[in-house]
Order: sequence, then C-alpha cells, then structure tokens
Amino acid sequence: MSEWSLIGSIQRQVGPHPQVRVGIGDDAAVLASHPRELLVACDSILDGSHFDSKTASPEQIGHKAIAVNLSDIAAMGGWPETALLALTVRHGQDHEFLERLIEGMLGTCRQFGVSLVGGDTSSWQAPLAISITIMGRPHPKTGPVLRSGARKGDLIAVTGQLGDSLSSGHHLCFTPRLAEAKLICDNLQPSSMIDISDGLASDLGHICRQSKLGACLKRSHIPVAKTLQKLAPDQALMRALSDGEDFELCFTLAEADLAKLQGIGLQYSIIGHMTAKPGLHWEDGKPIECLGFEHQF
Amino acid sequence: MSEWSLIGSIQRQVGPHPQVRVGIGDDAAVLASHPRELLVACDSILDGSHFDSKTASPEQIGHKAIAVNLSDIAAMGGWPETALLALTVRHGQDHEFLERLIEGMLGTCRQFGVSLVGGDTSSWQAPLAISITIMGRPHPKTGPVLRSGARKGDLIAVTGQLGDSLSSGHHLCFTPRLAEAKLICDNLQPSSMIDISDGLASDLGHICRQSKLGACLKRSHIPVAKTLQKLAPDQALMRALSDGEDFELCFTLAEADLAKLQGIGLQYSIIGHMTAKPGLHWEDGKPIECLGFEHQF
Repeated sequence: MSEWSLIGSIQRQVGPHPQVRVGIGDDAAVLASHPRELLVACDSILDGSHFDSKTASPEQIGHKAIAVNLSDIAAMGGWPETALLALTVRHGQDHEFLERLIEGMLGTCRQFGVSLVGGDTSSWQAPLAISITIMGRPHPKTGPVLRSGARKGDLIAVTGQLGDSLSSGHHLCFTPRLAEAKLICDNLQPSSMIDISDGLASDLGHICRQSKLGACLKRSHIPVAKTLQKLAPDQALMRALSDGEDFELCFTLAEADLAKLQGIGLQYSIIGHMTAKPGLHWEDGKPIECLGFEHQF
Repeated sequence: MSEWSLIGSIQRQVGPHPQVRVGIGDDAAVLASHPRELLVACDSILDGSHFDSKTASPEQIGHKAIAVNLSDIAAMGGWPETALLALTVRHGQDHEFLERLIEGMLGTCRQFGVSLVGGDTSSWQAPLAISITIMGRPHPKTGPVLRSGARKGDLIAVTGQLGDSLSSGHHLCFTPRLAEAKLICDNLQPSSMIDISDGLASDLGHICRQSKLGACLKRSHIPVAKTLQKLAPDQALMRALSDGEDFELCFTLAEADLAKLQGIGLQYSIIGHMTAKPGLHWEDGKPIECLGFEHQF
C-alpha cells in the first residue's frame, strides 16, 4: 500500500468541520481563528508498551491512540476539535490492518466531533508507533483547569473505579471522560484536574507538587474496581493507587462546591482533601509510598 | 535517565513566549487566542529512514526534526510560533545523547522564535523516532499560500539549488526557507507554494494536481547543484528533479509579479510555467518521467 493511497483513503472519510479551513493534503492545515484560548497536547502509543498488536485489534489500537489524547483535553476541562496523526508502521504492514486501524481512529474522532486535519505517515523496520496531536477549546465558564490550582482544604474527587484497567483490557476500549469533565465544569469550578494515566498516587502527586500542597486520603473511600475484590484488600488498594491507564479524572473542589456535585448524574468518590503538609498520606498520618508508572530511558 | 528528569531539563531551557499561557507540564498546553488563522502541521523523522544515528550527531538529528517542520510552515508562507514534541527513544539511551538531541532541537526553535509547549516522551526496544507538531501564523498580507492556487500561465520558481542534499549531508543541517518565504510574501502574492521534500518533480506534481493543471519546464533552467556537475548532465538533471530533502521552496506567480521578485535579494530560478495540459513535460513536449520519493508500506 502506498503512502498516498492511505492518505487518500483517510481524506475521503473525513467530513467538513467548522474549525477547519484547509484539512489533509497541503503542507499544513489551516484552522479558523480562535476567539478563546487553544488547548493542545500530544501523546504517543507504541506497540509493546501501550498495546500489543498481536492481541489487540487494529480498531482498538486506533481507538486508544485517539482516546488517550481526548483524555488529556478532558483533564483540562476542555472539548476537542481537531487532531493530527503521525503514523509509523512496519514495512509491509497489510492493507486491511491499516484500514481497520484508521477506522478505529476516525470512529472515535467522529464520536466526539473531532476532525483529523493532517499529519504524516511513514514506514520502517520497527514496530507500530502512533503519535496524535489534539487541539481543543477550554470550557467557556471555567477556562482551562490546570494541575496547579488546588487550594488547602479542597476536597479530592475521582470519577469511576480504579485499578483494573490494564488487567481487564479496559485500557483498549475506555471512554475518555469528556462528558464527565463537561458536567463538572458546567456545574462548578474545579480548582485542579488531571486524568489518571500513571496511577492515582502518581497523578494526584502532580496536582500536589504543582499546587505546592499535599493530600490526605481515606483508605475506605478509594474506589477500588469491583473485579479486584478477589485480591487481599491491601493488594487491591495498592492496585487502585498505582496501576496505570485508568483514564478516570482526579479533580479538586472547594468544600462549598460539594453540593453542586450531587444530583448531576456523575459517578464520583470523594477520597480525601488537600493539605499544607506535602506528599500523600493516609488519614492516620502514614505516608502513601506506592509509586505509579514512570518511563525510564 | 527518567522521563521526568528529561522533561524537567527541557522545561528549564524553554523561556516565556507571548503566545503561550501554559507550557510544558500540564495535561495540555494553553495558547493565547488567535486573531487570525492557525497553521498546524506534523512531521516525523525516523532512525534509519531520515537520519542514521550512527553517523549523524544528536544535535543534527534534533535540528532536522524541527527544521523539516519549519519547512512546512515556510511552504504555507507562514511563520512558526509553537511546537510539540513526541520523542520515542530506545531503552537505555544515554543521557548525554538525549541532552544533545534536545539542545539541537531547542537551538533551532530559538533561532526562529519557536517555543516548545509540550509533548510526550517514552522509550522502547526500537529505534529513535521523533514527531514534531508545529503551529504558526499565516503571512498577514497573503494569508495561507496553498498548493491549489496556481493558474494557467503562472511562472514556476524555485529557491536555491537542487539534487545533492542527501549525498552532501545538507539534509541534516539545512536552513528552513522561512526568511525566503517571508521575503516572497512581503513583496508579491505567490499563487501556490510547496517545500521540496520528495524531489522537485514529485512536489511540483502536487501543485499541478491540486491546481488541476500541468507544468512545462525548461531543462537549462533547473538549478542543478554545483556539486553534481561531475555527473553526466542528464544524470545530474534527474537528481535535481527526483532527489528528496532539498527543502527548498517551489512556488508559482503571475508573470506580472516577476519584476517584484527581482532585486529583493532572493536566490531563485524561473524553471517554467503552468499549463492546461496535465502532468509535467519539457519545453519540447516530452513528458518528465522521473519520480520522487514515495513511502511504501
């Protein structure tokens, strides 16, 4: 399959979008002017690290490539609009695999109103790598929700359940929490937010460091995934704190905003509060010592 | 070296930028609102395809990763502003190599006023791959210069000399033609433009197809690189037409605009004109049959 026939096939499947003046096929895409701020992020998924092309379907891989990026926009309280694709495939990769991979990507793009506006395709003697750049707009009411805005005493909330995404295969088919982020921002002003990609302890750690605070968590309030109940409680808790790729949201809010979170149909847990004391600790003062995932080169 | 120590090192080297509200370190970057259209493009370079990490210096690789993307913005007649980096390195890649790679990237960014605002770093058991997303603004006078705007009778011009970039190593240290594109757009309205990355014949072919026209070229006007003069003239000509990675500009202009191109200090050659007859041909009517580079999967 040639580069141009793949690009042509993508081009035919991408419809018009109000934000896109010139899409795929020129040296650069031309996007309409942006009256508000622009959110932009970039995340890669690699064969053997973030998926295994021997077991995951091409549609799942395509979905995940887009969804991990949508999760970053959700973590800013934003909504995605356009994306670019840098696709690097192994020489001789079969046509059907590539078509299905693209189908998985474009299906997830369509689901959230995202238009693929350009990118780059190439092939080499090495595994499949997909980098997506995502652009979007902040929520009009809250603006961009940063990691650095948490205040002492703020409550810490997480959506959904944690800890079994990698073991259950959820990481290949998860729904990025865009609707949940919108619901939160429609109804209150979260002081900080992050998506849980490297494990709750690691990602809440970013909020702590960037807000120059710490966090106190209640063991019994951590929403451990039901499928982990067969494990010893301590082991299940560690998984919920340190397993990666949950792609749920962790956010902080003023205690006065708690009432606004109730009755809006959001599945959430209040797991603790922000403290002046740095680091993560339990309600009995013991430090939380598990670590999330960090790439080593 | 850990992911966070690399990101921290990059973060410390990136200064403030008027376009950047929130840079490296959150889930997404926040860019200031854009009163005009936004140009956005994405290009990858891969070890073994676009460079050889055994012979190229890390600084050269870093430079090239940025420069190929700047070349895309130049081809739109634009000026770059911000970039994202998706960096995928082999496990165990040494610290010094990575620091020098980043130095090469950031040096070229600084040279053109580009701020690195975010991205993603990971490592795997496979060669080095670098994807850059570049964002910029169109020229205020001409707007985005597309591939599709050439008109019948328009003159075809190229900057610089062609054909020896790969053999001379020029592709590792070339200067993206941003200043040249600005000079062109400051002084006239190019009807179409592209950067020569896959060979003149291939890239001019894109202008032809997207403008629904053809091109008639004069053999003696093709600016064959001086270093190719040791070859037989036909062979040198073929190299100038089909060798990739020159990263010069090819653009079209109304004949009435030719006078505006003279005396502005631009090194250019008028190599032919656009025709109603599709495809590329010589002034004697013979078709030009060489092909540029196209990736096959």
